[in-house]
Amino acid sequence: MTSLALAPPLTRRDLTALFDPSSIAIVGASNDPAKYGNWLAVRALRDQIRRPAYLINKTRPTILDHPAVPSLTALDAPVDLAVIAVPAAGFDEAVDDAIAANVRAIVAITAGLGESGADGLARQNALVARLRDAEIPMLGPNCLGVLDNTTGLDATVNEFRPGSVSIISQSGNVAIDLAEHFTEQGLGVARFASLGNCADLDVADLIDSCVDHEGTAAIAVYCEGFKDGRKFARAAARAADAGKPVVLLSVGRGAASTRGAASHTGSLVTSSVVLEAVCEATGTELVSSPFEMANLLQALVRTRPPAGSRVAVLADGGGHASLASDSLEDAGLHVEEFSAELSARVAGELPPTAATSNPIDLAGGGEQDITCFARVAQRLIDAPEADAVLMTGFFGGYGDYDPAVAPGEIQAGHDIGALVAESEASFIAQTMFADSKPAQAMRESGIAVYRNVEHAAWALSRLSRRAQAGAHPLPVLPEPAAPLTETGYWPARRALTAAGIPFVPAAEVSTIAELEAAVAGLQFPLVLKALGDEHKSDNGGVILNIADHTALVEAWDDVQARLAPPVCSIEEMADLSGAVELIIGVRRDPTFGPIVLVGIGGVYTELLEDTRCALGPVTAVQARELLLSLRGSALLTGFRRKPAVDVDAAANLVATLSAYAAEHPEIGEIECNPIAVTPTAAVALDARIILDH
Amino acid sequence: MTSLALAPPLTRRDLTALFDPSSIAIVGASNDPAKYGNWLAVRALRDQIRRPAYLINKTRPTILDHPAVPSLTALDAPVDLAVIAVPAAGFDEAVDDAIAANVRAIVAITAGLGESGADGLARQNALVARLRDAEIPMLGPNCLGVLDNTTGLDATVNEFRPGSVSIISQSGNVAIDLAEHFTEQGLGVARFASLGNCADLDVADLIDSCVDHEGTAAIAVYCEGFKDGRKFARAAARAADAGKPVVLLSVGRGAASTRGAASHTGSLVTSSVVLEAVCEATGTELVSSPFEMANLLQALVRTRPPAGSRVAVLADGGGHASLASDSLEDAGLHVEEFSAELSARVAGELPPTAATSNPIDLAGGGEQDITCFARVAQRLIDAPEADAVLMTGFFGGYGDYDPAVAPGEIQAGHDIGALVAESEASFIAQTMFADSKPAQAMRESGIAVYRNVEHAAWALSRLSRRAQAGAHPLPVLPEPAAPLTETGYWPARRALTAAGIPFVPAAEVSTIAELEAAVAGLQFPLVLKALGDEHKSDNGGVILNIADHTALVEAWDDVQARLAPPVCSIEEMADLSGAVELIIGVRRDPTFGPIVLVGIGGVYTELLEDTRCALGPVTAVQARELLLSLRGSALLTGFRRKPAVDVDAAANLVATLSAYAAEHPEIGEIECNPIAVTPTAAVALDARIILDH
Repeated sequence: MTSLALAPPLTRRDLTALFDPSSIAIVGASNDPAKYGNWLAVRALRDQIRRPAYLINKTRPTILDHPAVPSLTALDAPVDLAVIAVPAAGFDEAVDDAIAANVRAIVAITAGLGESGADGLARQNALVARLRDAEIPMLGPNCLGVLDNTTGLDATVNEFRPGSVSIISQSGNVAIDLAEHFTEQGLGVARFASLGNCADLDVADLIDSCVDHEGTAAIAVYCEGFKDGRKFARAAARAADAGKPVVLLSVGRGAASTRGAASHTGSLVTSSVVLEAVCEATGTELVSSPFEMANLLQALVRTRPPAGSRVAVLADGGGHASLASDSLEDAGLHVEEFSAELSARVAGELPPTAATSNPIDLAGGGEQDITCFARVAQRLIDAPEADAVLMTGFFGGYGDYDPAVAPGEIQAGHDIGALVAESEASFIAQTMFADSKPAQAMRESGIAVYRNVEHAAWALSRLSRRAQAGAHPLPVLPEPAAPLTETGYWPARRALTAAGIPFVPAAEVSTIAELEAAVAGLQFPLVLKALGDEHKSDNGGVILNIADHTALVEAWDDVQARLAPPVCSIEEMADLSGAVELIIGVRRDPTFGPIVLVGIGGVYTELLEDTRCALGPVTAVQARELLLSLRGSALLTGFRRKPAVDVDAAANLVATLSAYAAEHPEIGEIECNPIAVTPTAAVALDARIILDH
Repeated sequence: MTSLALAPPLTRRDLTALFDPSSIAIVGASNDPAKYGNWLAVRALRDQIRRPAYLINKTRPTILDHPAVPSLTALDAPVDLAVIAVPAAGFDEAVDDAIAANVRAIVAITAGLGESGADGLARQNALVARLRDAEIPMLGPNCLGVLDNTTGLDATVNEFRPGSVSIISQSGNVAIDLAEHFTEQGLGVARFASLGNCADLDVADLIDSCVDHEGTAAIAVYCEGFKDGRKFARAAARAADAGKPVVLLSVGRGAASTRGAASHTGSLVTSSVVLEAVCEATGTELVSSPFEMANLLQALVRTRPPAGSRVAVLADGGGHASLASDSLEDAGLHVEEFSAELSARVAGELPPTAATSNPIDLAGGGEQDITCFARVAQRLIDAPEADAVLMTGFFGGYGDYDPAVAPGEIQAGHDIGALVAESEASFIAQTMFADSKPAQAMRESGIAVYRNVEHAAWALSRLSRRAQAGAHPLPVLPEPAAPLTETGYWPARRALTAAGIPFVPAAEVSTIAELEAAVAGLQFPLVLKALGDEHKSDNGGVILNIADHTALVEAWDDVQARLAPPVCSIEEMADLSGAVELIIGVRRDPTFGPIVLVGIGGVYTELLEDTRCALGPVTAVQARELLLSLRGSALLTGFRRKPAVDVDAAANLVATLSAYAAEHPEIGEIECNPIAVTPTAAVALDARIILDH
């Protein structure tokens, strides 16, 4: 059982002293240029005009030619932020001094605490308890510091060019990697916070703080694991609501995260599936590399989301026109032919050799007159038939071939930026010369510019998907119900029947006498299931289509002789003509709680994995959306003249199962596999519950 | 019907005069710096020490302060290569002069010929006929020229840094785009040839020439369309056999290439599927952008293909270790735990904080001693349990933090290169500082170095896939058989039965009398099919499971009353218990000829598209491989205690169908959907043939 059942109260912590302290102290300041305490002190002193910096060193009276004192309590000035970079042995004392000195926030660089083993963890926990009593937030320990370019705070050791993206990272190198990509794409950093051990402040606290931070336009999170998944989900959803998208780079996709899963649901809900579901529920953008992260952030910060999927391509060469169209279509966007009117308006700006439908190929128009880019862009921006414009190709390289063109080319970059800014347009660009001055001019004017068209197309498609995503409130976990103790097929059936899930009429029978009694209340044809085996249908433990009493007794004798099951189930045989079989289930993730799974049933479930997942519990409306987003959803809505089945009934069943699972945190995996959905109903044919280990 | 039925004889053209002419003439040389004839003349004159350059201008006696003559025939020196850049109006005369002057090759820059319409095409065709009579190869017209860095020939207008990759391109801008990526990745160009209209020389001729060119290690092809697909396939396969991989960038994936397809096979075999099949058959690497192309070429040129899929990760930070592992697993490679022995050997080179299983995290080892990279690399190269090594993270950046380390870091780059060169190892690297001197040192020492780990992982996976691909001889098209004239279900069935495809026993019947006569030779249960409709099973035109004579007559009357079909088929009902239904078919691509398709049948074929394609005709061995590469192949080999079905019988059926289709170029689409494969046989239940329009 996890600790997620009850959501903690929504307390957001005031991190002003962390990101904008009125004064700073470096505890463990050093003269040794190989030490962190040296680098931090150099930077703190550099910023003294803005905020007083105090150096603390146990033994030396001067550090870097500045006076130092032996402890925070020896200072006669108030300290807002204490950055602690002492060896692990001195950490407890330094923290206690900070509490005594009434600091308002701590950044703990010191390593060798919680990450070093049980003893270190116990020390760390004890310190956190004292800090929480004193209401002092702490970043780290075992972190690389904090930086805020909007307040000039520099309490870390790397350079981060100023900008509007805040980085919250569990890895210093990954943050540097990301920042290198930012620089290439003309992006910069508002805040950087290194997570370290997350002993006190966690990723959710820092996201919350960035949401309230005026200088942050988007939040980049690198996190290897979440302690409280639902807290992260709440913070991420709040960020999305505030228009400050969270982009999450996570790892562990390749790990064997489903080891030990007992049900189909369990094996299908991998840790990457869980994260995808969480991100979908919270409006978080999940990416898989620093490069992807930078590519997406550039678009999120600069490009308006397109209202639809129709993209106009403005290329200055046939090859790039085709490559752009392919990349857009690969990304799920559409490059549709222009109307004759739009094509004519475009043609009015271009030489007769140009291709003026979609994709446009200027075909030498750029060489003849560099202003044609902006003029054609204007035509496309004005056209209601394009939801977005992608400009692609050689722009930025004309000046290198003809220096007389260079100033006009830079001006064209600014002009296009101005056009886009004045309009409501979604506009994105690629150029072979992404470092050129014209490309920089476009970026400075607010346009996202990429080196490769597939990355521009991908980023645009993510914006489009984001714009079209249905908005559902974040699921809330209910109070736990009385825990289930018995599992097995019939206890599971009874519990789910009580919860409102319809099953085919059936009875639990152990003897021929019980069978005879039960059959009186059932209608042939019947199904006999020998219980006690997971793969009943594979080993002849399920006898279908029992037409009459004689066949029933034969089936009973056969099953008893072959399998001698402790108990059987005798059930009416559902009429599956016109029915679609689905698998529905819920797996409880130890961090994020219940994750709901729906899929097309049968052997195809496992072989072709046509399944979809969502953070639970889901409403019937969400369940319906999930079902209709299956690749095989045409089976549900009427495929090849077969009638549609009752998707609403199936969705209700999913919602009921997910609500039940959410009330039962003791359940690790629960599924009905299959449920049969007919044109008029949905009914479960099987049930399985596995308690958490 | 296409012109592919007979393969043209394998004549490879001698292009020495194109790539290494002993002299060159620029026809249309110009003083106007905005003209192509000017740029070409400047470059030809620059190279005069190596090969005499002659300038031809109709009116001016001097060009660029050099003497010019009015025509090629006016020269008193022999000319090997004539580069023609005159306006279209003067093109015929220039070519005829070139023939008269006995030039040995022509590069035709001139535009406005074949691409301008029917008249231009007729002129172009006539000129090609004269050139072929004179045995003079021509590149273009409407091309951007040719360059060979191994011979110093520069008859184009862009710079291409020397190297070992030859570029054959239909777009100048795409070639420049690619060359920019080459420069970033330390690659360069051996030859560049601009295809233009391919009036005479086509992409296959140029590939053939590059295969025979010592300075070419790999061939990059950008091609928007192939005139003779099988000729391209032969050249590409020859290149692969010669160890000079062809990487193909093509476009048109998004185009509605299956418009007009009448069968399931037709709609599933899209133009991108065709290209994939061709590339698989020829050992060609298909990519979708210039960036992908450069990424793959870097690995093809520098990295040995791994013998298996197990990769050892050498990272210098936990974040990059995890990101690399995820990227490798995403790409289908495996990051398995090291043996205790290997882990101990790695640990022997590193500080105790390091993680020494897979992925390795140096965890500060690099800062302490930069030589540990090479020492650990050596351990991994020596270990038989890793098929490849991926080094990832911060390498290249240490010297920036501590200048004293800088020389050692560069040396480490060279050292690792030397280790790899001396071994048989497959080694690939990523660094955040891919432009740094240490990264350059690695590249100079022969190691592929990427900026982003996902691209390194992707490139490695392509090498691995390439190393593991089964080698089959390129399919050869047979002599056409007598063409089929009648299609329809029964003519198709009869033709395929004659070709050796087994069908269930059946008879064609139009009247109740014929039905009665036919039934005498058939065994109940039967199936009655009303013919004349594509989707028989959707509209009740197929009555299954007819148990006896009474039911048969009822079914007949019902079908006659509802559908009044012109003809019916009465068939034995195949026993499908334990059978797997497949779709098999062949679509004739106008360029590449027959493409074979196999897939799991039923409605899932269309919804989940579990299909695989190959260039036809295929042997039974290839067909078997195709079937076993389906996602749902477990259905064939025995899934969940169900018996395996007769895959060999199914494969024979596919091979027979594909041989039949190959002999019948008049057939556009042919399919058996479904075939039923039981544990002991494969039998067709339906047949469909659509002649080419």
